[in-house]
Amino acid sequence: MATDRDLDRTRERIMTAALTEFAAKGLAGARTDAIARRAGVNERMIFYCFETKEGLYREVLRRKLSEKVHIIESSDDDFATTLVKGYESCCDDMRHVRMWQWEALDSGRRKIVAEEERRALIQREIAQIRRAQLRGDLPADIDEDLLMLVRIGLQIAPVALPQFTRLVAGMDPDDPKFRRRWSKCLRAIADRIAAPRSAAGHRHRNASEVQQNVQ
Amino acid sequence: MATDRDLDRTRERIMTAALTEFAAKGLAGARTDAIARRAGVNERMIFYCFETKEGLYREVLRRKLSEKVHIIESSDDDFATTLVKGYESCCDDMRHVRMWQWEALDSGRRKIVAEEERRALIQREIAQIRRAQLRGDLPADIDEDLLMLVRIGLQIAPVALPQFTRLVAGMDPDDPKFRRRWSKCLRAIADRIAAPRSAAGHRHRNASEVQQNVQ
Repeated sequence: MATDRDLDRTRERIMTAALTEFAAKGLAGARTDAIARRAGVNERMIFYCFETKEGLYREVLRRKLSEKVHIIESSDDDFATTLVKGYESCCDDMRHVRMWQWEALDSGRRKIVAEEERRALIQREIAQIRRAQLRGDLPADIDEDLLMLVRIGLQIAPVALPQFTRLVAGMDPDDPKFRRRWSKCLRAIADRIAAPRSAAGHRHRNASEVQQNVQ
Repeated sequence: MATDRDLDRTRERIMTAALTEFAAKGLAGARTDAIARRAGVNERMIFYCFETKEGLYREVLRRKLSEKVHIIESSDDDFATTLVKGYESCCDDMRHVRMWQWEALDSGRRKIVAEEERRALIQREIAQIRRAQLRGDLPADIDEDLLMLVRIGLQIAPVALPQFTRLVAGMDPDDPKFRRRWSKCLRAIADRIAAPRSAAGHRHRNASEVQQNVQ
């Protein structure tokens, strides 16, 4: 008889195979028999462990979410560092980026899988941005939810649209040289977003205020 | 016998139907019989007019490219305006955004359709950015190709990943209220990117220089 440990290993193998299949074909296109074959298990084990294909998909997403929760809780990074780390995490596992894209193309307006957990997680990230605004580390004149979308766009775009990265920069998004260049660019953009706007020289301000700042 | 004008109308109907089908299923998934049915023409007309499914796809892309060429040539907008217009154009025709996404998921590393024309067009946009840098309107310490990718990311992201827009902002990306909010946000971000960095108050500079600027 299978021990608990055997079952854990089987679940693990299925989830690894499922991530690859979902990244290749999306939830709608993925086939449980292909996942079973890739994992080297009987297809019935998928239904025994996860009930449905969607149940398996949810578990694959949940694992990613729990990694993110850990990262959010364990760090109090500034906007620039969070942005660069978020981008590097996209590069390190492009399969999740592909899953988001399949979902975008696939789902139309129907309810997405694990919606409530995902909303709760993103709202925690938005709350972090809000705290940074209150500390004066991010501009208060841009809504915190939109700053979150700015972050998502900048960290995902070159990975999600690799053909544009190649057309624009002549490099694949997973080229280490491109990764270094983009990380540096993200930091420069984030610094500019974070910089106190009132201090920009081409806007009007009181010269004595400026002098206080530069001392 | 069909006149030239009839043929033009038929081509037009096929291209309109093709855009919808390619947006729904991508190049690989699109079916010429479905396009013919949607256009109300005999499927053979597709092959008569465009030779292959890929030939039709190329023409659909070329039409979009020629619209973009027109926009680029007729305007000398600043970074913020180009960014906002680019975003609005994504909203006005989400079908093209979906085509880029299918392409991203579909193509892996194989040569994309109309690659040379697309590269040439993007390089013209990058040259515009370079000129703005030389005029001092954009920072010179961020490479021009990466500024182009920043623009692409910011203008496409909320449309390409509508589920994130809903999770983050609680609105659909085509909601007029969201569109207004995001356009305003893009303008604020672009202004911050464009602002002269040396003038930021938390960086060191000579106070008399600052005074010259604020006068």
